[in-house]
Amino acid sequence: MIHASICTIGNEILIGQIVDTNSSRLAAALEEAGIRVTRMLSIGDDRDEILNNLRNELTQSDIVITTGGLGPTKDDITKGVLAELSGSTGFVEHAGQLAIIHDILHSRGLDMLAINRAQALVPDRCEVIENRLGTAPIMVFRFPEDSFGATLYALPGVPFEAVGAIPDVMQDIRAHYPLEPILHHSLMVYGLAESALSELIAPWEDALPADMHLAYLPHPLTGIRLRLSIYGGSREDQEKRVEEQILRLKEILGDKVYSDQDDTLEATVGRLLKAAGKTLSAAESCTGGEISHLITSVPGSSAYYLGSVTSYAVSVKEHVLGVPAETVETAGVVSSEVAGAMAEGVRKMTGSDYAVSTTGLAGPDGDAFNPVGTVWIGVAGPKGTKTLKKQFRHDRKRNIQRFAAEALNFLRLTILEDLSI
Amino acid sequence: MIHASICTIGNEILIGQIVDTNSSRLAAALEEAGIRVTRMLSIGDDRDEILNNLRNELTQSDIVITTGGLGPTKDDITKGVLAELSGSTGFVEHAGQLAIIHDILHSRGLDMLAINRAQALVPDRCEVIENRLGTAPIMVFRFPEDSFGATLYALPGVPFEAVGAIPDVMQDIRAHYPLEPILHHSLMVYGLAESALSELIAPWEDALPADMHLAYLPHPLTGIRLRLSIYGGSREDQEKRVEEQILRLKEILGDKVYSDQDDTLEATVGRLLKAAGKTLSAAESCTGGEISHLITSVPGSSAYYLGSVTSYAVSVKEHVLGVPAETVETAGVVSSEVAGAMAEGVRKMTGSDYAVSTTGLAGPDGDAFNPVGTVWIGVAGPKGTKTLKKQFRHDRKRNIQRFAAEALNFLRLTILEDLSI
Repeated sequence: MIHASICTIGNEILIGQIVDTNSSRLAAALEEAGIRVTRMLSIGDDRDEILNNLRNELTQSDIVITTGGLGPTKDDITKGVLAELSGSTGFVEHAGQLAIIHDILHSRGLDMLAINRAQALVPDRCEVIENRLGTAPIMVFRFPEDSFGATLYALPGVPFEAVGAIPDVMQDIRAHYPLEPILHHSLMVYGLAESALSELIAPWEDALPADMHLAYLPHPLTGIRLRLSIYGGSREDQEKRVEEQILRLKEILGDKVYSDQDDTLEATVGRLLKAAGKTLSAAESCTGGEISHLITSVPGSSAYYLGSVTSYAVSVKEHVLGVPAETVETAGVVSSEVAGAMAEGVRKMTGSDYAVSTTGLAGPDGDAFNPVGTVWIGVAGPKGTKTLKKQFRHDRKRNIQRFAAEALNFLRLTILEDLSI
Repeated sequence: MIHASICTIGNEILIGQIVDTNSSRLAAALEEAGIRVTRMLSIGDDRDEILNNLRNELTQSDIVITTGGLGPTKDDITKGVLAELSGSTGFVEHAGQLAIIHDILHSRGLDMLAINRAQALVPDRCEVIENRLGTAPIMVFRFPEDSFGATLYALPGVPFEAVGAIPDVMQDIRAHYPLEPILHHSLMVYGLAESALSELIAPWEDALPADMHLAYLPHPLTGIRLRLSIYGGSREDQEKRVEEQILRLKEILGDKVYSDQDDTLEATVGRLLKAAGKTLSAAESCTGGEISHLITSVPGSSAYYLGSVTSYAVSVKEHVLGVPAETVETAGVVSSEVAGAMAEGVRKMTGSDYAVSTTGLAGPDGDAFNPVGTVWIGVAGPKGTKTLKKQFRHDRKRNIQRFAAEALNFLRLTILEDLSI
């Protein structure tokens, strides 16, 4: 098995100013290719630290990926240290990256300064993968067997650029390392705890052949990603055998599966609405705009999403959404009745086909009638109105996210049911 | 200077399933106390890896903090490995933690199982800091001078628990290590690029005495946190001298400073509204609910926030918010006129004192009249309606966040102006 280390370089991580998300994205890509990440580390912009740590990682791993330390300012010293580490005798200008730098500056209406041009210089012992998203080129150092016998990829630290470089880096790794052919297929599951899911599919999972492996990858907002992997064999054979197993798994899980892409609930709801030619609106109380924010974070959502009302105050529930004052009084604000009336109100107001609503207590406090973490969800649609109650725990931010995810899932199930009849 | 290492233990980080946020929070706390974090690393749930890496860190650092690997399941082996590393001869049950475990289970209506009770067992060579937020105790191993001469703190991996343990861990560090007294004071600044800010305050910064240091901590959503630190001297003297400098800095920066706590724009707006006894509503187009989500993420926001309309479709702008169709036609959807009419519409509809609105193009595409990244912001209040145009770049998610931050800042400045007259 090929082993890899990931190393971020930059003082801003060591003082806790920014959270390193690059390492996680790189690790996921390596893992999916069947490469084992044995260590991640973060070190500062210091020559000795960089040299010592990278020598150590290059000794222990086949592949070392660094991010950061490649900016144009004085504190970014990684390029010089890599020149030293690789025994480069000087720097050469990379014409392709220089052209990209020129284009980027031009598009911002800026002239090229010496400091910009210097970004295209690389140590003469490295190969370059062009960085089309920024100015710092991706450098590849192939250390021969008689030194470390390992490859070092130096990526920029800007997350947008680092993540953007992953496909090219993985392609280079595939071209130079004998990776076992792996095929993954993911199913996105919502509405089952990990333990319940595991129990439900145990007979199927236990019967999996030895060259197949199932991974549970839970996420608080998107449910659980089940990833089935098959190792070895021809691609054609892999695809056929994985598909057979996925079909069986889908049969067992039914509508708990919301997508067989690596996906979100809001994107899934969007696809369903688009396919059905239907529109959506939302009425939010305790989720405060989070559902609307999630829906509109999907590019192209304006094709099916009309808008929403956040009715934080009771007066807005009554006067804007038309929830009857007596319903609020008799049933309480956090109730099936109010959730239903909110969904119906915003549906009528916007003229949408579907509407989803929430009313609940995100925290920190509950009220006289309900504990913190209670939510009522409403969905109004062409075939009527339905409501659902869910109970979570204490954390305000987490509750808002969970409420929103539950609402999107309830909406998804309702649309599915309508479509299937 | 005291040196520290931070080490996360757990396979789920190495396969890229979760992003490690604990290390960043710990690093920030250590840095604020004047402790230098020299390295962060992430390793797997593997005995040899844990032993080798922790031995190495304990040799190089004064303080090593680990998070993770302390769960009750079989794959979490850190406690056993720490017993081995510390030369413990057995495990002892910690009565205080056992009582907490009992309480937690009881509050969830669960009985105590052997696997739960085992969580209260700790190696006999460690001291315990009770973890009131979860079942796994925080373990403190003090290695004497003739072994590593360092202290190891083992924290649980759950972010809520790890972050919750920071104050106790810092208190223990202060009690055992001679830290130089440092006082920090932060100012939150919005509306200036880092380079412009640096130029503006250069004369003040250059005149700072040698025992004071200024740090720029930029954040895309909250602007720049300026942190002034003073080293040494009595606390009283520190406070007096920092306050003098902060006053001067505030004079230079004027209303670019929005808070002198470590704070957000939405919390600042909330404080202003509360103090003035005013209410707020929002009308969002391109921000799709993000402004409302930010405002309601502040606990207690229901005291001043009435609600919002997300008018993603033009029909909702016209029929719900009452933006005249001819305004949309003549000025265009992304215009000062529509932003103003949206804010006025939602203000009237909800009866709020203030209303903020956005209309723009978050991406991926622009339209015939405006490039992607254009936003018009409106604020309607007791003294009339104002609008503001801003231009950003390409990334949809980033644009939505920037638009929302700009809108909150424009709202803040408007309220401030109203209050000062």
